[in-house]
Amino acid sequence: MGTIERLLLTVVLAAGLASGPAAAAESTPPLPSWNDTQARQRILEFVEAVTKPGSDDFVPPEERIAVFDNDGTLWSEKPLYFQLLYAIDYVKTNVGKHPEWRDRQPFQAVLENDQKALAASGEKGIVELVMASHAGMTTSEFDASVREWLKTAKHPEKKRLYPELVFQPMLELLAYLRDNDFSTWIVSGGGVDFVRTFSEDVYGIPPQQVVGSGIEMAFEMRGDGPVIVRQPKVAFIDDKAGKPVGIQRHIGRRPIAAFGNSDGDLQMLQWTAAGEGKRLMLLVHHTDAEREWAYDRESLVGKLDAALQQAKADGWVVVDMKGDWKVVYPFEGGAE
Amino acid sequence: MGTIERLLLTVVLAAGLASGPAAAAESTPPLPSWNDTQARQRILEFVEAVTKPGSDDFVPPEERIAVFDNDGTLWSEKPLYFQLLYAIDYVKTNVGKHPEWRDRQPFQAVLENDQKALAASGEKGIVELVMASHAGMTTSEFDASVREWLKTAKHPEKKRLYPELVFQPMLELLAYLRDNDFSTWIVSGGGVDFVRTFSEDVYGIPPQQVVGSGIEMAFEMRGDGPVIVRQPKVAFIDDKAGKPVGIQRHIGRRPIAAFGNSDGDLQMLQWTAAGEGKRLMLLVHHTDAEREWAYDRESLVGKLDAALQQAKADGWVVVDMKGDWKVVYPFEGGAE
Repeated sequence: MGTIERLLLTVVLAAGLASGPAAAAESTPPLPSWNDTQARQRILEFVEAVTKPGSDDFVPPEERIAVFDNDGTLWSEKPLYFQLLYAIDYVKTNVGKHPEWRDRQPFQAVLENDQKALAASGEKGIVELVMASHAGMTTSEFDASVREWLKTAKHPEKKRLYPELVFQPMLELLAYLRDNDFSTWIVSGGGVDFVRTFSEDVYGIPPQQVVGSGIEMAFEMRGDGPVIVRQPKVAFIDDKAGKPVGIQRHIGRRPIAAFGNSDGDLQMLQWTAAGEGKRLMLLVHHTDAEREWAYDRESLVGKLDAALQQAKADGWVVVDMKGDWKVVYPFEGGAE
Repeated sequence: MGTIERLLLTVVLAAGLASGPAAAAESTPPLPSWNDTQARQRILEFVEAVTKPGSDDFVPPEERIAVFDNDGTLWSEKPLYFQLLYAIDYVKTNVGKHPEWRDRQPFQAVLENDQKALAASGEKGIVELVMASHAGMTTSEFDASVREWLKTAKHPEKKRLYPELVFQPMLELLAYLRDNDFSTWIVSGGGVDFVRTFSEDVYGIPPQQVVGSGIEMAFEMRGDGPVIVRQPKVAFIDDKAGKPVGIQRHIGRRPIAAFGNSDGDLQMLQWTAAGEGKRLMLLVHHTDAEREWAYDRESLVGKLDAALQQAKADGWVVVDMKGDWKVVYPFEGGAE
C-alpha cells in the first residue's frame, strides 16, 4: 500500500465509512444467539429484502417501523406480569403509610400472601392494586419508585433482578434492526411510564418510542413549580384491538414488522400484515420449561391460542424458544 | 495545494465531513429570514450553549427535545383555525350525501355562510362540525380527504393554499435546531391526524413526532381486512394544561425548548421552564397587520394575555413578528 492509499484509508476509517452494518456483518454474523433455523433465516431474508436499494421490496428508512410487545416478547411474564409484581411489592413496602390496607381486600391478600383471596378479588382487585401503586404520585415520584424497585427487587423464582430477565436473542434482534435503519418501538399492554423507566437502558428504546396503557394525568401548579399528577382513572388500554389504535395514536404510520407472543398481540400483527409490501410477523412461543417457562393455550398470563392458529394459517414466523434460541437470558453467557 | 492534500480534500468532501451545521454556518449564517435582533441572538446563544461539548449547559442530543405549537406558531390561524375551515369546506362539499344538514344547525349556518348563526351555535356547534367532518371515516379515508383539501382549498383572504401560509422564519428555526441534533416536535391543540397529513412535507416533522388532540378510534375487522375507524367522541384535548400531559404521554421526557404564541401554550412553556438546566421559551407575537395579522389580548382565536405577562416577568423571548422577521411567508421571497 502506497503513502496516498494509506492516508486515504486513515481518513476513510476516521470518517466511519468502513464501519456500519455491512462491515460489521462481515466480521460477526447477526443474531449470534439464534440457532440457524428457519426463524433466523426468515428474519435475515426480510431485512435484506426491505433494505436492498433497487429491490422491489425496498422500504425507505423512515417507514421501517418495527413494533415489539414487551411482556413475554422482550422479557419474561411469569408467574405474573412484572408490573403486577411491582404493585404487590409497593403495597408491602408502603403499608406503614396505609394501615387501612391491613383489613381491606385485595391489599390484605397481598400482605398475607393469600393467593386464593387475591384471585377471588378478580380483575377489580388487580385494578385497585395497580391504582394504589401507580396513581396519586407525580410523574417524577412514580419514575423514582419504579427505578428503585428495578435496582433492588428480585424475581420470586429466578432470584434475579427483573431487568436481567430479558431475552438475549431479542436484544440482538433489536440491535440488528436498528443497524439496518429500522426504528424499534415497544407497544405494550403494560403501563407506558412503567416500561419507560428501563426501556432505554435495557433495550436501547428511548421513552418516546414506547407505546402502552396509561392512566389519566393532571397538570398542577404547586408552590415549588408545576407537576404532573397521575390520576386513579384508566385513560387507555393498549392491548388486543387497542394495540393498532395505540400505534395510530403514537406513530401515525403502519409498522412493517411486528413481534409478539400472545393473543393480546393478534390485532397488532393483523394490522401490520394488512399493509402493502413485504411484512414480517413473528410470535415467540414459550416452549422451554427448563430455561424459561412453557405455556400457550391454557395460560392465564400470556395466553396464546387464536394468534398461534392465525400464524400457522398465514405463515407468520413462530419462534420455538427451546429449539431456536441458544441462550434465553444474557446471564447464561453470550452465544459462541 | 499538493496532490495528497487535494486527494484528501476530495475524500473529505465526498464523505460529507465538510458539510453539517458547523461548516454550513460558515457559509450561510443560520436563520437568514430573521433580523439580527435580540430574539435571533437569544436563539443562537441558547443553541450554542447546549450543544458545545464541555460547556456547563451541555445537553446530550437525546435530550434536545424542542416542542412547537402549530396554529399561530408555525402557520397562520386567522380568520379561524385552518382545521375548522377544513370542517366547513367538508360540510359544503358533502351536503349531497347529508341532505339533513340543510335545515340543521350548525350545518345550515355553514351552508348559508351565516356567521351569526354559526357563532350562536357556540362550542357545541363547533364540536358537531368537527365530528361530522372528522369521525365515521377510516384513518385512511380521513387522511385522503385532508390531503385532497390541502392540495386544492384556498384561504378565504390570502387566496393561497393553506400549506403556503407557514412562517418562513420558523421553517428556518426548525431546520437549524435539527442541524444541531435537536428532535423537533409539534404539540398542537389541533387534531393529531390532521396535522400529520402535512407535517412531514411542510415542516420535516414525521408523523410520530406530532402530538395533538384526538378522537376515539376503533379497530375493526372488515371483509377486505382490518381498518381503524374514527369515532364521534373526543379522547384527548391537547391544549392548555393538556399540553404538558400530551408531552408526557407521547414523549415521556421534558422538553428543553418550547415555542408557542397563545395562552393555550402557557402550561407547555411553564413545564419546559421548570426543568433543570438551560431552557428556551419563546412566544411569537402577531404584530404585523400588513403581512399577516395583528392580535393578542382581545382575540378569540389565539388569545395571548397571561402568557405574554409571564413572558415579560420571566424573561422569555417574545418575537415581534413585524420587527424581527424579514419575511413572514415563503412566497414573499427568501431572505437576502
